[in-house]
Amino acid sequence: MIPAISIVGHSKSGKTTLIELLIREFKKRGRRVAAVKHAHEDFDLDHPGKDSWRFGEAGSESVTLLGARRSAVMRSHPPGYAFDELLSSARGDADIMLIEGMSSGPYPKIEMHRGELGRELRCEPAELLAVVTDEPLEIGCKQFSLQEIGAIANLVEEHLAKRSPSLAALQINGKRVSLGPFTQKILANTILGIVKSLKGISKINTVSVLIRAADDVSDDAGPPS
Amino acid sequence: MIPAISIVGHSKSGKTTLIELLIREFKKRGRRVAAVKHAHEDFDLDHPGKDSWRFGEAGSESVTLLGARRSAVMRSHPPGYAFDELLSSARGDADIMLIEGMSSGPYPKIEMHRGELGRELRCEPAELLAVVTDEPLEIGCKQFSLQEIGAIANLVEEHLAKRSPSLAALQINGKRVSLGPFTQKILANTILGIVKSLKGISKINTVSVLIRAADDVSDDAGPPS
Repeated sequence: MIPAISIVGHSKSGKTTLIELLIREFKKRGRRVAAVKHAHEDFDLDHPGKDSWRFGEAGSESVTLLGARRSAVMRSHPPGYAFDELLSSARGDADIMLIEGMSSGPYPKIEMHRGELGRELRCEPAELLAVVTDEPLEIGCKQFSLQEIGAIANLVEEHLAKRSPSLAALQINGKRVSLGPFTQKILANTILGIVKSLKGISKINTVSVLIRAADDVSDDAGPPS
Repeated sequence: MIPAISIVGHSKSGKTTLIELLIREFKKRGRRVAAVKHAHEDFDLDHPGKDSWRFGEAGSESVTLLGARRSAVMRSHPPGYAFDELLSSARGDADIMLIEGMSSGPYPKIEMHRGELGRELRCEPAELLAVVTDEPLEIGCKQFSLQEIGAIANLVEEHLAKRSPSLAALQINGKRVSLGPFTQKILANTILGIVKSLKGISKINTVSVLIRAADDVSDDAGPPS
């Protein structure tokens, strides 16, 4: 499972505001954040008749819009698709991933609570790292107000630091292959060994390698180099 | 450079239609296609006030919208960003990448020509793999009509098969590191060697490995496994 924190809560509880404040706080600290918004309903990004829609309809696996300053990669996926895999590719090189929603997902959660909504917490306190609330609650978990954004950011960082991420994630032909810790270690150490011998490489946080195998991978079928 | 074909031509020449027909043709042949639309102007995907815009404004490196059936990953990038790197990640496991536009880009090109526009070709014939045209042109390169979509698809496939893709693409800390052919071969063969020994793996087309290094990569700092 990739290291990420879910910000959960009822509609209008202020989840988006909390994530926005956390992004600004982490940015100040020099961290790179990837944000995810989980939509139960399908969102509407392109429209019938627009070119990107035509390419998707025709059967393209992905449609990328490439502008001068930004890009968007859109993919369709079957229901039950491995979110973790998708999030891992969306995360890229970011240090911290914040997910809005996914209260039934596997990621550690912080719940946003607003008293005037008059509703119970969405999650059991035992499931939560903390609650961010505008009124004191009689529950047994950490509580913060939205003004304590530094302390909330500390909690997120401490929690993500504790979670030792898997050393190596592998996909073959685009499908995730799960590896035991021993195999992960062999693969990671072998690749890090090669990569560290390259000139001009100092601190290594992440390494990503994409290999396209020749048609017959059992031989060296590549052209002479 | 990743294996891709650019479909170029003046506005209204029919580029989108050609790509749509090619996607359908390749789909029939069991190929996986990734489509890219190059926009000179920046496109408009999200809007001020929308949550995804707020996350990007706050400084998030990427904003992902995750729906039940599709996802979109949006990133901002500085001008002059390495398109090739971005396209490589957008391509994923697709066999064929088709780019609409990018007539000044480095990818092999097919130009779409429509007589009634009364305009010269956008590219020099020597730059083109072929022209798809609704009138015969007196130029020295292959010409097809839009009805010959099978033959155009064959040309694309033959051309992409000829281009031997680089064996290994490496990113360290999210930045592309270029490798000579010899280093690529060592890295690719080492990883393929480990991966082929995994149970249940038969034909390998692509392998992607993402490694998160422990804080001190010079030691084995992982937890006991």
